[in-house]
This record gives sequence, C-alpha cells and structure tokens, in this order.
Amino acid sequence: MADNDEKRRTAQDHLHEVAELLRRHKLAEELVHRSDMPRREIVEDLTHRQNLAALERRLNELHPADVASILEALPVEDRLLVWELVRQERDGEILLEVSDAVRESLIANMEVDELVAAAEQLDADEIADLAPDLPAEVMDDVFESLSVEERQRLREAMSYAEDSVGALMDFDMIGVREDVTVEVVLRYLRRREELPDHTDQLFVVDRDEHLRGLLAVNRLLVSAPDALVGSIMSTEGIVTLHPDQDAQEAARAFERYDLVSAPVVDDEGKLVARVTVDAVVDFIRERSENEMLSAGGLSEDEDLFAPVWDSLRNRWTWLALNLVTAFIASRVIGTFEHAIEKLVALAALMPIIAGIGGNSGNQTITMIVRGLAVGQVTPSNARKLLAKEFLVAVLNGLVWGAVVGLFAFLIYHNWQLGAVMMGAMLLNLMLAAVMGFAIPMTMHKLGRDPAMGASVMITAITDSGGFFIFLGLATVFLV
Amino acid sequence: MADNDEKRRTAQDHLHEVAELLRRHKLAEELVHRSDMPRREIVEDLTHRQNLAALERRLNELHPADVASILEALPVEDRLLVWELVRQERDGEILLEVSDAVRESLIANMEVDELVAAAEQLDADEIADLAPDLPAEVMDDVFESLSVEERQRLREAMSYAEDSVGALMDFDMIGVREDVTVEVVLRYLRRREELPDHTDQLFVVDRDEHLRGLLAVNRLLVSAPDALVGSIMSTEGIVTLHPDQDAQEAARAFERYDLVSAPVVDDEGKLVARVTVDAVVDFIRERSENEMLSAGGLSEDEDLFAPVWDSLRNRWTWLALNLVTAFIASRVIGTFEHAIEKLVALAALMPIIAGIGGNSGNQTITMIVRGLAVGQVTPSNARKLLAKEFLVAVLNGLVWGAVVGLFAFLIYHNWQLGAVMMGAMLLNLMLAAVMGFAIPMTMHKLGRDPAMGASVMITAITDSGGFFIFLGLATVFLV
Repeated sequence: MADNDEKRRTAQDHLHEVAELLRRHKLAEELVHRSDMPRREIVEDLTHRQNLAALERRLNELHPADVASILEALPVEDRLLVWELVRQERDGEILLEVSDAVRESLIANMEVDELVAAAEQLDADEIADLAPDLPAEVMDDVFESLSVEERQRLREAMSYAEDSVGALMDFDMIGVREDVTVEVVLRYLRRREELPDHTDQLFVVDRDEHLRGLLAVNRLLVSAPDALVGSIMSTEGIVTLHPDQDAQEAARAFERYDLVSAPVVDDEGKLVARVTVDAVVDFIRERSENEMLSAGGLSEDEDLFAPVWDSLRNRWTWLALNLVTAFIASRVIGTFEHAIEKLVALAALMPIIAGIGGNSGNQTITMIVRGLAVGQVTPSNARKLLAKEFLVAVLNGLVWGAVVGLFAFLIYHNWQLGAVMMGAMLLNLMLAAVMGFAIPMTMHKLGRDPAMGASVMITAITDSGGFFIFLGLATVFLV
Repeated sequence: MADNDEKRRTAQDHLHEVAELLRRHKLAEELVHRSDMPRREIVEDLTHRQNLAALERRLNELHPADVASILEALPVEDRLLVWELVRQERDGEILLEVSDAVRESLIANMEVDELVAAAEQLDADEIADLAPDLPAEVMDDVFESLSVEERQRLREAMSYAEDSVGALMDFDMIGVREDVTVEVVLRYLRRREELPDHTDQLFVVDRDEHLRGLLAVNRLLVSAPDALVGSIMSTEGIVTLHPDQDAQEAARAFERYDLVSAPVVDDEGKLVARVTVDAVVDFIRERSENEMLSAGGLSEDEDLFAPVWDSLRNRWTWLALNLVTAFIASRVIGTFEHAIEKLVALAALMPIIAGIGGNSGNQTITMIVRGLAVGQVTPSNARKLLAKEFLVAVLNGLVWGAVVGLFAFLIYHNWQLGAVMMGAMLLNLMLAAVMGFAIPMTMHKLGRDPAMGASVMITAITDSGGFFIFLGLATVFLV
C-alpha cells in the first residue's frame, strides 16, 4: 500500500494514458507511411507494434468498467481499434458496462461467432440485458449453448419490462434451511470456493422454496456454531420485492432501508431471485441521466461521437414539437398585428411577459414533479399545494409586474402601457401556476411520466397565453 | 412470510394510514369543540385520545426513513403534531433522514435539551451532518457530553467540505492484523454482539494503522481456520479514498467497481474511516435532485409546505436573473422598432427564431455537460465534438430554416421574408451550437459547475442573438 497514488488513479487517468498510447501508435503508423527508406521502416514497424502491445497489456489490466468508459470517450475509429485489442473473453463483461449507444456501435462491428462467444461468458440475467441489441441468430446460438436451467432463467429474465424489478434481479444467491445449525451452514459455505458478489445475507427457504426469513452473513459470524438458523434469522419487517414491481420502488426501498441485497419472491411467496445494490446504483444513475437528457430535449442516450445523422434523429422530435408550439404562438401574435402596428412598443415588451411566465411555470412544475416522484403529493394535500403555488404566483406577479411596468414606463413614458404590462404579468403568472400544477397532476393520474412532456407544455401555454393576455389587454385598453 | 402484501407495503401506504389517523383525530377534536353536552364530551375525548394513541403506536413501529417521508409530506401544522408523537429517542435518526428544509422546520420547534438529547444518540459522523442546522449552544452541550475520541472524530468530520469524501465517511469499521489466523479473527468477531452495518470487509492494518490490505467477509467464510489473514487478504487493485477527495469521484468508484464499502486513508496511508454504499446512494440521489431543482430555477431544496415567504425567496434569484436577460432582449427588439413598424409580420415571426435557437443550444449544452460530468470530454477530443455539434446545427438550420421559411411565405406571401427567416434560423442555430459548446467548457475550466448557469446563459444569448440576427437581416434586405 506504499504507492497510494497508484491506487487512487482515476478513470480519467486511465483515459489519458490510453489516449497517449493511441497517439504514439498513430504517430508511428504515420511515419511508416511517410518514409520509404527500407531500414527505417523496420525500426518503425517495431515501434508501432510495441505501442500496440503496450496498449493491449494496459487494457487487459484495467477493470471492465474502466475499459467501457475509455471506449465511450473515444471517437468511433479509435474506439474500434481499442475494442480489437481487448481480450475476447472480456468482451461480454465490457459490453454490459458501456452505454446503449456505444454498445450498438461495438456490436455492429462484431462477427456472429464473436458475439456468441461474448454472450456465453455471461449469466442469464446479464445476457438478458444485452439481448435487445443482439441479432436474432446470435440469440438462437446462445440459447442452444445454455443448460436447461439457464435457458429457463434467460427466458424469465427477458420477459420482464425494462423498468421492473425483473430487469434488475440476478439468480446468484444462496438458500439455506431453517432447521440446520450455523456450523453446518459455515461448512457448506466453506465448500464453495467463493460466494456470489454482494452476498450480505443468505435466504432461508423451506422445501418448496418459500422464503422463510433472512440470515445476515454478519449475524452468522457472531453466532454460536450450534445455534439453529431458524433461531437467528430475521423474519420481521424484511423487505421483499416482486418481479413485476416498478424498479423505482425497489430503488426507493434500497435507499431508505440501506439494503445491500433483497429477495425477490413470486405471488406464492417462493424465492425466485435477488436484487443487489450495485444494480440499484446503476439504475438510479441511469434514470437520473435519462431525466437530464429528456429535460434537455434529447430523446435517448446519445453517443458523444454518434454519426451526425443519428444525432439529428435523436434531436428532431423535440425541435419539431417546439416548432409547432412556436408556430401557434406566432399566430397568436399575428391576430394582434393591428395593435402592434399602432403601438410598436408592444412587440418589444411581449417577450418579457411570455419568458417570465415560462420560468415561473417551470418552477411550479419542478416542485410538483419532485413531490409526485417521492410520493409526497397526495390527494389530501393537493389542494393546499395548489393554493400555495397560486399565492406565490400572485405575490410574484405583483412584485415583478410592478418592476416590468416601471421598466415599460421609463422606456416609453406611457403609464397606461406600464399598467397593462403589470396586469399581463400578474395574469400570466397566475395561469402559469394553475397549469404548472394541473399538467403534472393530470399526467400522473393518466399514468404517464410527468417529468418529460410537462416542461414543453407549460412553455407553450405561457408563451401563447402570455402573448394573448398582453396583446389582448393592450387592444382593449391602449389602442 | 404468509402475508406478503404486508411486507411489500410501500411508504405511500404508510403515509395514507397516518393521514387517515390524523384525519380521525382532527374530526374527533372538532366534534369536541362543537358539542357542549357534557356526556358526549367524555366519549369524544376518549375517541380523540384513542386515535392519537393509535397514531403514536403506528409511528413508532415504522422505520425512521418512513417517518421522515411522512413528515415531509405533511403540511407544517400536521407535521409538528406528528413530530410530537415520535418517541424522543428516535428524534436523532429521523432528523438525519428528513430533507434539509423539513429538518429546519422541525429543529425550529424543538427545545435545546430535546435537541441535545437527540444529537447524543448519534455517532460523530452523523452529528456532523446535523451540525450546520443546530444552534451553537446545542453543539456546545453535545461536545461536552462526548468522549475524547468521539469529540476528536466529530471535529474531524465537521472539518470537511460538504461535497468531499470526508462528509460521507463513518468510523464504524473493524481493523485486523495480517499475522493472525482466520480462527482468531472469527473468535474476535464472535465476541462482538453485532458487526457495524455494511461490513462486507475487514480492514487489515499494521501497528501504526497503515492500511495493508482488505479482507472480504465472504473470503473469511470460505477460508480454512488456520489460514493467515495476510495470505488471504487482497492487496491488488483495491480502491482507497482520501478525505479531501471529491465525493463525486468516490460515487463513481462505487458505481464502477460495485463496492459496498471502501477504506479512507490519509496522506501517510493510515486508515482513518470508511465509506459505505448507503451513504453513496443518498449522495447520488441528492445530487441528482439538486440538479433537477437548479435546472428548474429553484436555488435550493424547498419544503413542499414552506411558508410562502421562503418559497418566494427561493425562486426570486432565478426570476430576477431571467428578467434582466428579458429586458436586454426587449431592448434589442426596441432598436429595430422602425423595421417592425414597416413590416409588422416581423413581430409575429421573431419568437420562432429565438425559441428554436434556445432549444437547440440547450441540447448541445446537455450533451457537453453530461460528457464533462462522466469525464468523456477531454482536451484531445473537444475539437472533434465542436465540429460535430456545428455540423448538426448547420444541417438542422437548413432543414428547420426551410420549414419556417415556408411557413412565413405561406402566411405572408412574401418570399424575401421567407428567405430572411431561413437565413436567420441557420445563423442562430450556428450561434447556439458554438455558445452551447463554449459556455460549459469555459465554466468547467474555471472550476465552476457547468450544469447550473449554462442554461440561463445560452437562452439569453439565443434570445437576444436571435432577435438581433432576424431583425438585422430584415432591416438590411426587406425594409
């Protein structure tokens, strides 16, 4: 442990190192192409091979997750070069770690037999994660190669929805009977060379695989050898999951009760699998990333170096949707062209009303979406929340309305214009609060994800609504 | 395990149940106030007390995290009523679980001696988490009551920055020497009644507390009793953290290497503490929530039932900032009033250019911010990324520019106007791509968080820039 710095090297360092080796390799390659002196060529070919060999060695020392992150950070051409250098028996575990977009780019460049070999090194639940990206013929070959039990598990794992507990679970667990002693369990464990990762507890089951209780490994360590499993296992307040349950609920249980693993049981209470905290951490991270992407208007995870065409497709839905709402807002303004003609200041002032309305509405949406996500918004407190958001909007409307009214007056020396600005701001913020509350609540009731579309909708409403309110008031009172 | 449904009850169910008990209690209370018949009063006082007792019983059966989430979902008045019913010895662990905003509201209603009692039930690292919210006199009393070692630990835990490993770590760990046998270790463990939570490994240290290696509990279980710790511990590729390290890096290591716990060592390689996965999960969740809040323009975690005044303060910074950018955009339009006067269609069309520019710029920002966060954007690939984003913008500009140009032509039957729309769209999307790349990269270089301010900035630029480009082109070519 003398060399602490070595241990604390970050993934970033690995990336820099690989990039440097790649650069040297490419430099050497370039020199070979440039030079035509036969003797130099031999030397340089050697350097070139040495660099590649050093790179290969380094890659195969790294953790699969580190290799995955290097692959993600490399432009496509370099990525495929590095991927070639990875030892074939590591392909499977690395494919599991890379992002969906990068996985696609790697799989597209692999032969059928390479893919089959990669998949065969994995467990059933891991193959199920890769399955959607694998060609049908690869999956057929993989099925052929599995044992009957593994085949059954793979079929089961593939049958669950992406965001269900079934998609997170694995089958690597140890079951024990309640009528044996600690000593017997310890002897049984010692016969295995190693325990599955994240084995913090053993699952106590009866003859029919019904879950009877949980035996923490730490409990096992501190118990007398002649104690019976049944007497030291816990049965109270234990968390069990169901394969069809929402993965989000499982994640919340792990977060709340600080779990490392949890049993998954079917409708009859039979133990079918377990979920471990590492799968939950990946799920939480992926979900928060997807939220960030969808809030930014990207419909899916985009490879940083995706071909331009893929990027365009990924971004078009959002831009097209926003274009439609912009066209509507434009037509709202269009109907008030006579007012703008008479008082051109309206054109300069109207984006202020629309913009602040959108910001305020998005704040309300953020509060409600978050409250819904953590289960804090309930039918019983919803009315109280609406009342509060409305009151905040009215006070904001009065304060900011006064500010923008004053701004309009100072620029255009027209106090009626200032008054219309203030009134329009107040009304648009009230509209923003009501809709910012109603949109996510309605989407939640309809069983849709309120986070995603709510922001586009509220902006569309506060834009068109803001223009309509402001120009409408101006038409009535000013022109 | 017969009653599976009971085990799978979600936090939402707990909340509903508590809300129902509260409702009954308040109903009974109301009846007492309404009625003045002496005999009925006695009966109702009884019901009222029964309801409260049932509520109290239920609350004290629930996990602290569940109580915390109930407190967060209740309006302030109900929240304080429920808080009164929680047994005092559970106050500390529940205060740890609630959100910052709710914690403030609870602490504000507690006496000094209650707070001291609550804090005294916690470990040093947990007290450090509460410390920023506790009044100085409470902290003085708490310090007084601690042992010398605990006091030293509390001081240490309080000395680290909020987003550092030091803020995540705890001191609950077991160290062993490498020259003892497995049997001795097992005997040593058995003497303890229980092991600290999340003990998946023991820390092997020498006489001076230097970390020598890690001994997985699961390894311990499958090893021969006479094996030496030194011969079965792992020393290769183990992850160690440093107290001053960024917590984000630690979280990434847990996520990548699927850790349950990791040792924290100081500059000399001495073991000082450990980090466990439950702290990491909480950190990841909190961080993603904060990102969501700041993207929505809320400067901090807001209690759903915060007093209106607190909500206003929380939201004003953002609205004020956006108002300033809106004023600037408004003045940009103001300078082109003569053009709008001559061709009022410009007023109706200009928000389209600004809006789509903002959307497109935010897409670029999302990609870059995410790439920076996971370390995929490096100096060596930055230029490639900029080129790609620019190309995407040009293609988007041509396609969407043609669409909006056609829209303008169809509505106003003016092909020059359509051409100006198309040109302005193309230019504004190019501006959005360049700035959407440059803003987060610059903020990252300056050591600032690129996620937060980047979105306001890009919108300000694409708004004012879009208006300027469109109205400028129109002035040159149309009026």
